[in-house]
This record gives sequence, structure tokens and C-alpha cells, in this order.
Amino acid sequence: MKIGLDIMGGDFAPGATVLGAIAAYKALEPQQQKLVLIGNKDLAQPIFAEQGFNPDLIEIIHTTEVIGMGEHPTKAITQKPNSSIGIGFRMLKEGSLDSFSSAGNTGAMLVGAMFSVKTIPGVIRPAISTIVPKLKKGYGIMLDVGANADCKPDTLLQFGVLGSLFAENIHGVHNPKVGLINIGEEEEKGNMLALATHTLMKDTNMFNFVGNVEGRDLFNDKADVIVCDGFTGNVMLKLAETFYVLTKQKGFEDEFFARFNYEQYGGSPILGVNAPVIIGHGISTPEAIKNMVLLSRSMITTKLIDKIKAAFK
Amino acid sequence: MKIGLDIMGGDFAPGATVLGAIAAYKALEPQQQKLVLIGNKDLAQPIFAEQGFNPDLIEIIHTTEVIGMGEHPTKAITQKPNSSIGIGFRMLKEGSLDSFSSAGNTGAMLVGAMFSVKTIPGVIRPAISTIVPKLKKGYGIMLDVGANADCKPDTLLQFGVLGSLFAENIHGVHNPKVGLINIGEEEEKGNMLALATHTLMKDTNMFNFVGNVEGRDLFNDKADVIVCDGFTGNVMLKLAETFYVLTKQKGFEDEFFARFNYEQYGGSPILGVNAPVIIGHGISTPEAIKNMVLLSRSMITTKLIDKIKAAFK
Repeated sequence: MKIGLDIMGGDFAPGATVLGAIAAYKALEPQQQKLVLIGNKDLAQPIFAEQGFNPDLIEIIHTTEVIGMGEHPTKAITQKPNSSIGIGFRMLKEGSLDSFSSAGNTGAMLVGAMFSVKTIPGVIRPAISTIVPKLKKGYGIMLDVGANADCKPDTLLQFGVLGSLFAENIHGVHNPKVGLINIGEEEEKGNMLALATHTLMKDTNMFNFVGNVEGRDLFNDKADVIVCDGFTGNVMLKLAETFYVLTKQKGFEDEFFARFNYEQYGGSPILGVNAPVIIGHGISTPEAIKNMVLLSRSMITTKLIDKIKAAFK
Repeated sequence: MKIGLDIMGGDFAPGATVLGAIAAYKALEPQQQKLVLIGNKDLAQPIFAEQGFNPDLIEIIHTTEVIGMGEHPTKAITQKPNSSIGIGFRMLKEGSLDSFSSAGNTGAMLVGAMFSVKTIPGVIRPAISTIVPKLKKGYGIMLDVGANADCKPDTLLQFGVLGSLFAENIHGVHNPKVGLINIGEEEEKGNMLALATHTLMKDTNMFNFVGNVEGRDLFNDKADVIVCDGFTGNVMLKLAETFYVLTKQKGFEDEFFARFNYEQYGGSPILGVNAPVIIGHGISTPEAIKNMVLLSRSMITTKLIDKIKAAFK
């Protein structure tokens, strides 16, 4: 198994990414699980040296080209084939990597995934998902959080399938409860999109639909999978992140709020493409990078992508 | 000035509402500002007696009919003209009240307002607004939070006008900054609704548009007025309320989180109708009811409705 990691992506790269890679290496089984770093070797070497880490233990694909955080995704992916993200996706497509992750330009990661490994046949639109902590214990998943600002009911229906397979395989939830974000519990509540989606979901046998959920249900046990359009999901995600930042600023210590920390879950998987791809948070720390690598491994070992492909056959 | 209050509305009515009315009475100037309660006198009297409060100081319009929290709004308003909400709106329409507020059935309050005092000419759709605490100090306003699940760009543009006038008159903010909820700061980000609305807002001279704001900007100083469709706003509001509930549950004490408390701001004004109307939170406490009455007074004394009418002439 080869787990690809862009060491040039994120606000604290390559410092945080290389340190995260070292931590990840120590958590992996070196015989079966190989870490492949993509980025500027000359910047990585001093960090390895400083940490007393033998650089021969991890493969590095050297490149100096980088896609910046502010660059236009499609332009950057097309015009910078030798960027760390560009190379990562080329290797993923060729099969010389089994997964690819980066804390770099989110749009470039999404476009790169769709251009290279491509959308799974039958999937209308891939979704960016995010992992949310549950108050009692464990984690839920919410999707879409930004890949599709405008969605149609059949797209949201498919997000239910994608999220359900993720929760079942990665979080080990049996028959995951899928909820639709709405403005009330009642079937007749909602905007046109939510109303039409509710009708589709109510009749589906593709997952365990538990009905509408509201903004207040993100952290409780009503649903393991929360489905929404990418506009609503993105706004919710950024609002929820504020809450983590605020409690931290205020010095509130708590097990639940600690799990709010994006570092714990290691990034947002793109679901619906033909390979495991994870987008890390721009401000990813070494801990976040390590967890992104471990999440990549889970997505490979559980054969999540094959299961998604089978569901859409 | 006559301030109308439904004492039958809310989960803790009439206990919380009557206690709130007594507290409000003490905060008002009894010569100029008269409180008019609407509801079951027989249920209110023992509470007045218990508190040693002279019931002759506050006018009570007696009725035994009540619209329940779960009732269908339009049906209830039409079929229960003698409910406390029905009477309140009739008196407001006739001019025997200058404002009306209730912590009862939200839908019935919205429908009642639109059926009785009606939408201000020129306003496409009234909005339910909510007051949000700002981290530094003071309060902002967000609208719509649930009256209109589906919105059009021109409706959102008008929400900017309504919110701006509220922030200026009620919160005393000079030239309030109006932000549009979106998934990125950049002009080219967003769903179709946000993109089209941004274009309209950018060109308007009706308020001080400061551009897109994100989920993370709710509590900071980027905007005094946050505009969104009622679906997004409702989801955000309910998510934000969770934060308050959670920090309270966890025993975190903080001035900012205390201001998250819905009790502090006393309800959600319906903006765009021909009279001051406020919907209280279902779980309103006496403090919340008192503050709802004081907010009603501010909306009357500042002549907010006349200013809104003038803006849409």
C-alpha cells in the first residue's frame, strides 16, 4: 500500500507536513504501508535531520513547483502538472499511489481528483465530507461541505449513499442513520430542494433514512450521516469551527470540545471519486497531517472505494 | 403607547409570561408606556397575587382560547379569531395596540402579522430576524431565519435594507455594515442565489454593503447585518443556539457566551410588516419576556416601522 502525501500544502508547510509525515511513519506498519511524500526534497531534508529521522525510510518524489492557496483551481491544475498536487494525482491515476492527500488548495484538490481519477460511474457529483464529533461518543459525517454550492435532489440522495458507506466502513457504524438538514422535523417543512429530497429519501432502500434533522442536531445522535447542499454545509462547518476556536480562546477545556479540533480527524475526504482523496485543513498541524495519513490508510484497507463503486453499479 | 403581550404563548406560559410582564412593568414608565396583556385572566390572577402585584396596574384582555405550539399556522389563525394571538393582531390592526409580541406558535405569529397588519407596500416578503451577540461588544442582526425557506435575489436585497434600518435605529449603529452569507469572501464564490444577490448588493446605494461573509463571521465585526435566505439562517441559528446550550451544560461561564443567551435580547422581530411584531423563543423565561417587551418599546419609540415604510416608498 502506498499512501501519498503532499508536503507543500497548507499554511505551515513544509514544516508541519514533514513533522506529520514522521509521526505518521511511526504509526504505520513499515512493511505493508509505505508513505510517499511529494514536494521539495531540499526543504524536507533539514527537518528530517533536525528530528534525527532517517530520510531513506520514506520515499520522496522531488518537485519544486507548488500550487498556492489563492490560485485558481482549474488553471493551476492544468498549468502546473509538475506541482506537488499535480504529481500526486498523476501517480494516483497511474496506480503508483493508493491514496493522495494534501492540506493545500481545496479547489485544486477537488478539480485534480475529478480530472485525474475521475468521478465514479453513476455518481452525479462527488462531495467533500467533514467529520463531526458526537456529544456522547464517536463521530458523524456531514456532506457536502463545499464541492457543490447548488445541488439537486438526486445529488443529495446520492450523498446519503456515500456518507452511509463512509460511516459504516470508516466509523464502524452498523446501518448508519442518515438525516437530511432542514428547518424542521416535519416532512412538510423546508425549501424546495429539501422537500423534494425528503420525498426521494423517504422511498429509498439504499440507506437508513431517519428524516429531517436541524442545525441543533449536528452533535447529537439523531443521525450518523448528515446530508445537505454544499452551501449550507460550508456555512455550518465554518460556524462550528468558530465554536472550537472560541472555546479554546476562552480557555475552556473539555473532552467534547477537544474532539471539535480538526487535528483529531485529519481532513475532509472527497467521496465519489475513483480513489481515496483527502483534503486537509489549511492550518493543519503535524498531528492533523498524521491523522490524515491514518484516515487515508483506513480508506484503503476497508476498500471503501470498491464498495462505493459496487453501490453505484 | 400600548405594548401588547400574549401571556399564553411559550412553553412556560402563563407562569413565565406573567412574571415577565411584572418585571417589564417595573422597567417601563407607567404614564407613557402601558402594558396590555392578552390571555386567561383566571390563570394570571393567582400569579399576580402570589407576587403581591396589583393587577389593576396592567390591563388584561381576557380570553380562554389559545393557539397551541403544534397547530397549523394558517388554519389556527383563521379558525381561532379569539385566541390570544388572534386578538392581539386584531387590536394591533385596529390601532388599540402599538406593538404585539408572543412566545407562542412562530408560524401563527408570522401568518397573523401578514394577515392583519400586512406587509409594508414595496416589501416583497417580511423576514424573521434574530439578534446575535458580537465578540467585541454589542449585537448584530441576522435575517431571514425562517420566514422564507426559498428566496430570490431581490428579496435578499430588501433584507439588507430592513436589517440596516434595524441595526441603525435599535442598536444605534451608524451606517451599518451589511454582509451576505456565502461560502467564500470572493465575489465569484457562491450558489446561484448568492452570486446573483452579490451583484445586486454591490450596486446598491440603499445600504453599506461590505461583501460576502462566511459562517465564521457571525460573531466578529465584519458585518452588523448578516443577510441570508431563511433556510440557511434557520440552520445557522439553531446551530449557534446549540453552542450556548453546550457551554452552559458544561458549566463554562463567560460574558460572551452569556450574551448568547436568547433571554438577553428578547425575541425575533418580524421586519417588513406594518407594525412592531416580535416572536419570542418557545422556552422564554420571565427575563426573556421582559426583554421582549423592552424591545417592543424600542421599536415603537424609534419609529422603526415608519422609517422602513419611508425606505420602501
